[in-house]
Amino acid sequence: MTAGAPGAVFDTLRDGWFADRATAWERAGAVPREDVERLAGHGLLGMTVGTAHRGSGVPLVDVTEVHRLVAAASPSLHSLLVVHAMVCHALHRWAARETRDELLPELATGRVLAAFALTETGGGADAGALATTIDRDGDTLRVTGEKRWLSFGRIADAYLVFGRTEGLDSCALVDGGSAVRVESEPPTAGLRAAQLARVTFDGATAPAARAVGRPGTGIPFVATSCLTLGRLCVAAGAVGVARAALDLAVGHAATRTTGGRRLGDHQLVRGLLADAALATESAAHYVRSAARQVEDRAPTAAVTAAGAKLLATRAAGSATAAASRLLGAEGQTEDHPLARLVTAARVHEVIEGPTEVLQDVVAAALLRGSNRKAEQ
Amino acid sequence: MTAGAPGAVFDTLRDGWFADRATAWERAGAVPREDVERLAGHGLLGMTVGTAHRGSGVPLVDVTEVHRLVAAASPSLHSLLVVHAMVCHALHRWAARETRDELLPELATGRVLAAFALTETGGGADAGALATTIDRDGDTLRVTGEKRWLSFGRIADAYLVFGRTEGLDSCALVDGGSAVRVESEPPTAGLRAAQLARVTFDGATAPAARAVGRPGTGIPFVATSCLTLGRLCVAAGAVGVARAALDLAVGHAATRTTGGRRLGDHQLVRGLLADAALATESAAHYVRSAARQVEDRAPTAAVTAAGAKLLATRAAGSATAAASRLLGAEGQTEDHPLARLVTAARVHEVIEGPTEVLQDVVAAALLRGSNRKAEQ
Amino acid sequence: MTAGAPGAVFDTLRDGWFADRATAWERAGAVPREDVERLAGHGLLGMTVGTAHRGSGVPLVDVTEVHRLVAAASPSLHSLLVVHAMVCHALHRWAARETRDELLPELATGRVLAAFALTETGGGADAGALATTIDRDGDTLRVTGEKRWLSFGRIADAYLVFGRTEGLDSCALVDGGSAVRVESEPPTAGLRAAQLARVTFDGATAPAARAVGRPGTGIPFVATSCLTLGRLCVAAGAVGVARAALDLAVGHAATRTTGGRRLGDHQLVRGLLADAALATESAAHYVRSAARQVEDRAPTAAVTAAGAKLLATRAAGSATAAASRLLGAEGQTEDHPLARLVTAARVHEVIEGPTEVLQDVVAAALLRGSNRKAEQ
Amino acid sequence: MTAGAPGAVFDTLRDGWFADRATAWERAGAVPREDVERLAGHGLLGMTVGTAHRGSGVPLVDVTEVHRLVAAASPSLHSLLVVHAMVCHALHRWAARETRDELLPELATGRVLAAFALTETGGGADAGALATTIDRDGDTLRVTGEKRWLSFGRIADAYLVFGRTEGLDSCALVDGGSAVRVESEPPTAGLRAAQLARVTFDGATAPAARAVGRPGTGIPFVATSCLTLGRLCVAAGAVGVARAALDLAVGHAATRTTGGRRLGDHQLVRGLLADAALATESAAHYVRSAARQVEDRAPTAAVTAAGAKLLATRAAGSATAAASRLLGAEGQTEDHPLARLVTAARVHEVIEGPTEVLQDVVAAALLRGSNRKAEQ
Repeated sequence: MTAGAPGAVFDTLRDGWFADRATAWERAGAVPREDVERLAGHGLLGMTVGTAHRGSGVPLVDVTEVHRLVAAASPSLHSLLVVHAMVCHALHRWAARETRDELLPELATGRVLAAFALTETGGGADAGALATTIDRDGDTLRVTGEKRWLSFGRIADAYLVFGRTEGLDSCALVDGGSAVRVESEPPTAGLRAAQLARVTFDGATAPAARAVGRPGTGIPFVATSCLTLGRLCVAAGAVGVARAALDLAVGHAATRTTGGRRLGDHQLVRGLLADAALATESAAHYVRSAARQVEDRAPTAAVTAAGAKLLATRAAGSATAAASRLLGAEGQTEDHPLARLVTAARVHEVIEGPTEVLQDVVAAALLRGSNRKAEQ
Repeated sequence: MTAGAPGAVFDTLRDGWFADRATAWERAGAVPREDVERLAGHGLLGMTVGTAHRGSGVPLVDVTEVHRLVAAASPSLHSLLVVHAMVCHALHRWAARETRDELLPELATGRVLAAFALTETGGGADAGALATTIDRDGDTLRVTGEKRWLSFGRIADAYLVFGRTEGLDSCALVDGGSAVRVESEPPTAGLRAAQLARVTFDGATAPAARAVGRPGTGIPFVATSCLTLGRLCVAAGAVGVARAALDLAVGHAATRTTGGRRLGDHQLVRGLLADAALATESAAHYVRSAARQVEDRAPTAAVTAAGAKLLATRAAGSATAAASRLLGAEGQTEDHPLARLVTAARVHEVIEGPTEVLQDVVAAALLRGSNRKAEQ
Repeated sequence: MTAGAPGAVFDTLRDGWFADRATAWERAGAVPREDVERLAGHGLLGMTVGTAHRGSGVPLVDVTEVHRLVAAASPSLHSLLVVHAMVCHALHRWAARETRDELLPELATGRVLAAFALTETGGGADAGALATTIDRDGDTLRVTGEKRWLSFGRIADAYLVFGRTEGLDSCALVDGGSAVRVESEPPTAGLRAAQLARVTFDGATAPAARAVGRPGTGIPFVATSCLTLGRLCVAAGAVGVARAALDLAVGHAATRTTGGRRLGDHQLVRGLLADAALATESAAHYVRSAARQVEDRAPTAAVTAAGAKLLATRAAGSATAAASRLLGAEGQTEDHPLARLVTAARVHEVIEGPTEVLQDVVAAALLRGSNRKAEQ
Repeated sequence: MTAGAPGAVFDTLRDGWFADRATAWERAGAVPREDVERLAGHGLLGMTVGTAHRGSGVPLVDVTEVHRLVAAASPSLHSLLVVHAMVCHALHRWAARETRDELLPELATGRVLAAFALTETGGGADAGALATTIDRDGDTLRVTGEKRWLSFGRIADAYLVFGRTEGLDSCALVDGGSAVRVESEPPTAGLRAAQLARVTFDGATAPAARAVGRPGTGIPFVATSCLTLGRLCVAAGAVGVARAALDLAVGHAATRTTGGRRLGDHQLVRGLLADAALATESAAHYVRSAARQVEDRAPTAAVTAAGAKLLATRAAGSATAAASRLLGAEGQTEDHPLARLVTAARVHEVIEGPTEVLQDVVAAALLRGSNRKAEQ
């Protein structure tokens, strides 16, 4: 992996090969392992991993640029990038040194693909509600439970599982194997190639050194800091989706005529385009600011990342809705690029914390700030 | 056809047979002719046609109730109902008596299916922009031009074509035949069974008695009054879509828990549900009011129908977005009923006049009213 | 009082005298008692009281029309009408026969003015939170507590007080007097003439027959049904404010030019006007529907009235905002009629249940309905 | 003037003296000349003027911070800062060297106050529509026309007048005097101390060296670049208003209880606060980005400044509306700080280009960009 990863990555993503594959993946309902390896070879999976571990250690601001491009072309591949970055982050910050040194290079180079196994049926991502257990028996961890909607769960080699150890939140990296049963979730529009899986751990074991963080830190530290990174990545993806939708809308408005006038000369069309563009660009500013804060581990990073996801997914919602209105019947056809963007915008809104959860995070910070001022 | 048509129609639509067929149609990309005939047998195609012409002459307020149910289950079939009602309306009000008496019973009983052939490439529905010509040659009309996105155009027996006769807007009913070439439009999400067609008239002929309205009345009278009825029907359909989405969202919120609390006990969820419900119900009031005005041929009917479509499609947009957020990953799967509703909401927004055109109609009426007041 | 009250009332309200007075009242910060009596003489205070009690028993749908006109001209006087209707309603439905028969005619003819004394400092209108006590001592009620923001509290002759009797919610009508201390609240923009008061009851007494409802019914029955009526009245007022603002905006757009074109010919202006008009008219439909349900004591009346207030106050917010944008600098001057409407819209939003409370009422009903369906 | 101006300015603005004066000014309907001089002495009027001309040449990003503080405390004084910065900018970039060197130091130190005289009755700021004439007669300019709504027009010493010279747009700086008639505009809520004036030039003269830019550049260059700066300043002020309103709302939610729970623990309140905060902070990012572009004379500066004003004034609208809802009756009283912020938000929306004009500027840039891409 060269230090110049993002440049190489950008070249790959702008290549016609990539766009064609993205469409083919979605139709086939899978990203073949060889395509993942090819992209990994161009550095796509190691951007957030340091050079000491065979990644390229790209600044997060640049990583978000890559996520923008990927999300607009392939929401499915984007979901792999997101969960992969989250798992790498957890190992880097919370795993035992030996686990980290052994696995990060494998993840950075794509030889091992890992899934993020937090969500359970009906439980959202609530800490107290986790039913999965991670029991410790001497030097062995034993994992029992069922996880839902895991991106790339069907081809993952390992799973970052969250559960409870003697009543405390905990986390461990578990390899696939005979005690891990993988089933397909129903196909999700726009994420067919994400190979979403329901994964059942039936007493699957792992060495104790695969514990990630100590019991009690699983949710409040490990999952929370992973989610902050995940929200940043999804926010970046949503900006990419918003821009791509806006490009379609502006291109259409610039060239089509209706009622003898160019569509873009109708003032209501201009209002629609301007509002979508401003929502998108102000969200993009916010995402960059969040990337810097997450990079610097600023105390405000979690709140800013939550805010960035909220603003960016709203922008993607507005921009795709504007494009849908402007493109009319043409934009509703199944193979139109807009269809993929509309679906991606809906998916972005519900993953890694829906709007209501994010509003709560932002408001809690405002109220804490107000209390601190009052106490001074 | 019995006078009790709507009751019989409701029974049919609430029957399991109907829901199953709607799903099957969409998968197959077509509503088989025999299913159309069965539904016609239950009175579905003759509701807006008087009993003198073998319809059931149901009041429009009741017709809109039927459109609500149909649109929520099958946007494709709904599109047939909409265009069929428009063609029947045009014949009833503007055709020569012999054409009317001959064809209305055929349309009311579904023996003849007709498409509404107004839209052309790049032209929206602009009068001045129509390129199709309807030339008169003695007792024969000769039609040349290309029409786009015709609902059920692939199985229609006849076409209500709008064009220009010696520079004036005109309209005629043309049968299918060798001079009428029918091609499929690309499949449209949620409207696959609507069999959208691009139809080319290559000098297709019709007897002069098939002219509908005199030259010069084609757009300002015939098309405009058809569009008013069409907008009312789409508005009713959008209310149906909004209610169905709201039912999904409320049902989910009433039964699922997150963070140890019922989803519906989270105040932001309650806010989302309340707003979507109020948008839907206030639009429903407006649609009923528009139905009465259209029935009574009130001078305000066209404006109220435009407003009803705007309000109802916005409500459908809010309600499907709310459901999408609340249902999370589950609601994004391809076979979930929500997928069909989301697509229907997008389609409703762009057909029979997009939001910007409707705003213009409403504002024009406000400004005329203000001028009249000023003159008094 | 003749049966033709609303006609007479409309004549009075459309009279130049009324508009002039409304402006003068606001400047003076009070509606003089003689003006109240003159309006009462025209039937304004007895509309919701039956003819048996010297009111005119006007249907609520007509009452809401009157509220529309009053609110647009004088939010202050409108607040008197609202609280007065609420007190009359409480006496009619919940008071002892003798109290009702004695007082309703006095209220209907304006000889007695009554205030609605529910709100306390910091407590909103929460039942459990009421600090006021209504103790019963033989045949005497003794009231101690402080009530805030009472409309027309400074000139009221009697107060419908809500408090607690032996731990249960209760309600009583208490006359003014030496044990009732009345102070002005700070002047409220747009409601200066509403003579808002902070009223302290320092052991004020009333005969036991002045109890309204039995202990335990004070909040869940008496206050709740009064609030339903109050919300309907405020919703009607908000529709009036929205229409008046829209009239200003449309009138301006129809006559002014900018950039060589009539303001109303700019498409974004048309969009603004159309959206405000549709919000207003669909809210008006909803208010009429709520009026009918409240009149009929339909089980859904409370929910529909809450929804009506939410929709109507939002419409007033949109319409005044649209007018403010269109009228530019001119509309910001202090004496412009728009200033009064903008303030009224803000006030309507916060009284008788703010948006969040109303959303909760509507959502609770949706969830109950869903549960009932599930149980069947 | 020291280089450390902004620090000194901040100290002044945070001083109790300033807040007290701001309230007193508004009540009195004027900012006394001595207070203007005191503030000028602290560097408030010279921030955008270079040190060579006795200003402090503060970077625009810092200037916008000052505008934020001023606008939240005194919209009237803020309007002086805005127009003063615009006039300084016009002289710096477009005036003859002698005019610039003579007048900029006078303006920077507040010895001369200047008004920006563009708007005319009914004409908005349209170039072609200007009725004012600036005739050249040898070495003398002669100005005839009427200008409206000039901030601080009643105490200005000079006027930057836009008009037409031999049919071309032109601009000149004209001193007050006997041929300049100054009348008060009707008092504007929240801007009473801005001393808005209608100013009639009745053949007022100025030396030819007071021409600012050559004929033909008046609107497309001088006014346009002034408006860009003005929009940036108003955007900064709107961010200040939004933050101040948000502080009120958060402080209220953090300390008040309703229904036995802290207001800020109600989820819908949290949603309201979060949305207002995110709108405000993302607008603040955008304003900073616009400030850098205006400073660098980037080709995109005019569009970004227009977008910044749109986003910031919308944020101020949301934040003041949220505060108004949360503070309830208390926030509606006339002397509450919220009243000033609500009015400022409305004023910001209509000055220096209303929303519709800004949307048009942004959309035009999008469409030009799309065309350029298509041509490549």
